[in-house]
Amino acid sequence: MPTLEVCLSPALLHCYDVKDKTVIVVDVLRATSTMCAALHHGVSKIVPVATMEDCKAYKGYPDHILAAERDAKTAEGFDYSNSPHDYMNTENLDGESRSTLGKTLVLTTTNGTKMLHMVKDAKEVLIGAFVNVNALAIYLENSPNNILIACAAWKDRVNMEDSVFAGGLAHRLKNQFTMACDSGKMMEKLYVDIKDNLFEYHRHASHFDRLTGMGAARDLKYCLTENIAPVVPILKGSELVKI
Amino acid sequence: MPTLEVCLSPALLHCYDVKDKTVIVVDVLRATSTMCAALHHGVSKIVPVATMEDCKAYKGYPDHILAAERDAKTAEGFDYSNSPHDYMNTENLDGESRSTLGKTLVLTTTNGTKMLHMVKDAKEVLIGAFVNVNALAIYLENSPNNILIACAAWKDRVNMEDSVFAGGLAHRLKNQFTMACDSGKMMEKLYVDIKDNLFEYHRHASHFDRLTGMGAARDLKYCLTENIAPVVPILKGSELVKI
Repeated sequence: MPTLEVCLSPALLHCYDVKDKTVIVVDVLRATSTMCAALHHGVSKIVPVATMEDCKAYKGYPDHILAAERDAKTAEGFDYSNSPHDYMNTENLDGESRSTLGKTLVLTTTNGTKMLHMVKDAKEVLIGAFVNVNALAIYLENSPNNILIACAAWKDRVNMEDSVFAGGLAHRLKNQFTMACDSGKMMEKLYVDIKDNLFEYHRHASHFDRLTGMGAARDLKYCLTENIAPVVPILKGSELVKI
Repeated sequence: MPTLEVCLSPALLHCYDVKDKTVIVVDVLRATSTMCAALHHGVSKIVPVATMEDCKAYKGYPDHILAAERDAKTAEGFDYSNSPHDYMNTENLDGESRSTLGKTLVLTTTNGTKMLHMVKDAKEVLIGAFVNVNALAIYLENSPNNILIACAAWKDRVNMEDSVFAGGLAHRLKNQFTMACDSGKMMEKLYVDIKDNLFEYHRHASHFDRLTGMGAARDLKYCLTENIAPVVPILKGSELVKI
């Protein structure tokens, strides 16, 4: 059987060999949830970039949306942020409604896009979040590749939502893959114990209060709901598209 | 209330400020369990050293025992290793019986002594393992210091036994300290879920098979039993002694 491992922070990535693996990048609050939401709601592709300067370089490109988040806020000089609701063609938090159908989203975030760039040389790079967990599991269950779930964490600090998601995906794949690290085994157990209270359990997460305080409560609800954006985003060259 | 945080690997230590904190160094299999066992069974003090060369420098010192472990085995040229049973004045795994009463133990291990050296400038450095968890909790419960539980892990990889221990100590202190990181909260929950099957649960640990294969099954049993070496080792200068 192929193996499944879980890396809980970018600062631990050196412990794992990403070459020849399928790597699933996870930043539940909110980068990877937002990527799934955007592709699910009609954005045609996403260009994840590491820095705000890289993002600004796309200014003026037709049908491109520029989005930047730093420290959980919309970065200065950008119109779009890291909220899944920005890409649903419904009202955003400011009461505005903007269509993003068919657009290219250029996105930089505090943690998620950093991890994405760190693993870009893997055999296959996918995007994971609670919102697409079953779709991912179905795509992966017959994969011959070894799997690494790579949590973006918060400025290298292990966080609850990414770790528990890793456990949830590991749980769905435990009969098809050999659990090859303790992190995966521990998080799988934890996920099973709290999965019926996913939202309530995450009230204890350090990032929960941070986002609630910013008025992003509906984002939390969205990002902690399983399977509401059933897409499998894959990195093709420098772009994320739906499989 | 003072805070409690859990660092799951030396590679994550940069996320935490150790200054002004009480740091509990954890390497359940087997360095910190062995340190507790040795002090509990009459070793007078322990000199943790980072390298085998540092250890050999003590050769010929009266009443000094030199012990070195690398990759879970007794390092070449050393008589003592990282087994708690080496220091109980009973027969060791080779059937030999050697008294270590009143001796000074100079010890270097793969992971445990490395973490100890990384945090040596903290306000207070203690040694933790399942074998002394209640003694530690009693000592700490009225401490005014913020606490960091620092897991030695396995060559930077997060491991089960150190992480679950951190959860166990956090569980005992949760009413006296503010849980200030997600790692501590997740591990506390996991510990509560598995504490009645501590030994059985650790059969899944990556280090379990490694040690079992080396004939160290009785060490596993010892290291995964709570409160059988009820001492609180503290770093005083460059030596560990009982409080």
